[in-house]
Amino acid sequence: MIDKDVHSHHISQQFNAELDTVKTHMLEMGGLVEQQVRDAITALIEGDSQSAETVKVNDNHINSMEVSIDEECTRILARRQPAASDLRLVIAISKAVIDLERIGDEAGKIATQAIQLSESGESPRGYKEIRHIGNHVGFMVRDALDAFARFDVDMALAVAKEDKLVDEEYGTAVRSIITFMMEDPRTISQMMNVIWALRSLERVGDHARNIAEHVIYLVKGRDVRHFGIKEMTAEVNDK
Amino acid sequence: MIDKDVHSHHISQQFNAELDTVKTHMLEMGGLVEQQVRDAITALIEGDSQSAETVKVNDNHINSMEVSIDEECTRILARRQPAASDLRLVIAISKAVIDLERIGDEAGKIATQAIQLSESGESPRGYKEIRHIGNHVGFMVRDALDAFARFDVDMALAVAKEDKLVDEEYGTAVRSIITFMMEDPRTISQMMNVIWALRSLERVGDHARNIAEHVIYLVKGRDVRHFGIKEMTAEVNDK
Repeated sequence: MIDKDVHSHHISQQFNAELDTVKTHMLEMGGLVEQQVRDAITALIEGDSQSAETVKVNDNHINSMEVSIDEECTRILARRQPAASDLRLVIAISKAVIDLERIGDEAGKIATQAIQLSESGESPRGYKEIRHIGNHVGFMVRDALDAFARFDVDMALAVAKEDKLVDEEYGTAVRSIITFMMEDPRTISQMMNVIWALRSLERVGDHARNIAEHVIYLVKGRDVRHFGIKEMTAEVNDK
Repeated sequence: MIDKDVHSHHISQQFNAELDTVKTHMLEMGGLVEQQVRDAITALIEGDSQSAETVKVNDNHINSMEVSIDEECTRILARRQPAASDLRLVIAISKAVIDLERIGDEAGKIATQAIQLSESGESPRGYKEIRHIGNHVGFMVRDALDAFARFDVDMALAVAKEDKLVDEEYGTAVRSIITFMMEDPRTISQMMNVIWALRSLERVGDHARNIAEHVIYLVKGRDVRHFGIKEMTAEVNDK
């Protein structure tokens, strides 16, 4: 009987270590993805096509991290058959890596716009907006990952709230660029590059929000993906 | 001993029924999502804001289908602890519903563009392209779902190949609209509505490809998401 207890204690220690490892890998992937977004924005603003190329090359590494973390999750499901909060952790990680990979894709798309702009000449408008919204969504990604690391639902809720602001900032920025396009149509294609980059940043905000929602699912056991902010707040505050 | 066999046979029959049910629910969701895309395109082309509003309202139903199918998957993981191909089926379904939900979102975005166009007046360009690319990605979604229903990897591979064509058609369409914008900047905002709708359609193609990749994972046990078409073909043909 004692032997069996020691044995199962050992098993559960190993299991906990596996869960910690896969969570750490996901957070490492998150750190890289966050950096990719920042590097892509800098490359675009500075017209640095070489840095933009580096962002595109790095995306392959992020893709392979996604595949390997996903395999870790599947292995845990198959061998450990987790239940309750352990199962939710594995599910939340496997969903978060999908969002992280998509954020990486968006960084790659911003890098593509940076390369096109460095070839065709600067856009007359939109850099200020890219810097501003870029910073905003960069913080959201960082906070969503911190919330995941600490299982902090209040922080996760704050990230979800920020996404609404980003959507508004994005809408305002695009409208003002379109107005300028009509006034000065000669540089439409450069302004389109800026608009595509802004669109990518807005998508990064959406994915940060998704990650925040996975944290709430993980801690609270409730899928809040299609909740409004009001319902989500009620769920988080429901101790 | 016989009793136990009968019992486990019974359990496995129930389990198979649960797997069939969740797969059926996913395919039903897929059918609705496919219809949403077609309805959104028709609403945009015909300038029918009322149909566009219906598409937006229906999206709530699709969102709740996603949540409930996801719960079914989690319940199966927790209670049945599936292994091997059963586990892959549950994982593939839970990933496919994420893509289906995103396709539903894109249909909603196309509906938003349809409403804006019906208010601001027609775009002078782009309807032909929307119809053409819309048909193309509509067939891709249908074929991806059929491939999932029949576990048909050859059909899945064909869908993945189509996505490359859609990307090219999309690129050509957007470039030609941007050229026209420069010539006639007065209708830029209407043409931007068309460009956003085209972008959404291109994203629908990406998600159809993702679903096709889940089918290959499910049948072949290999994650082909970041493979090129050549590697993917080799994987599918490797009996």
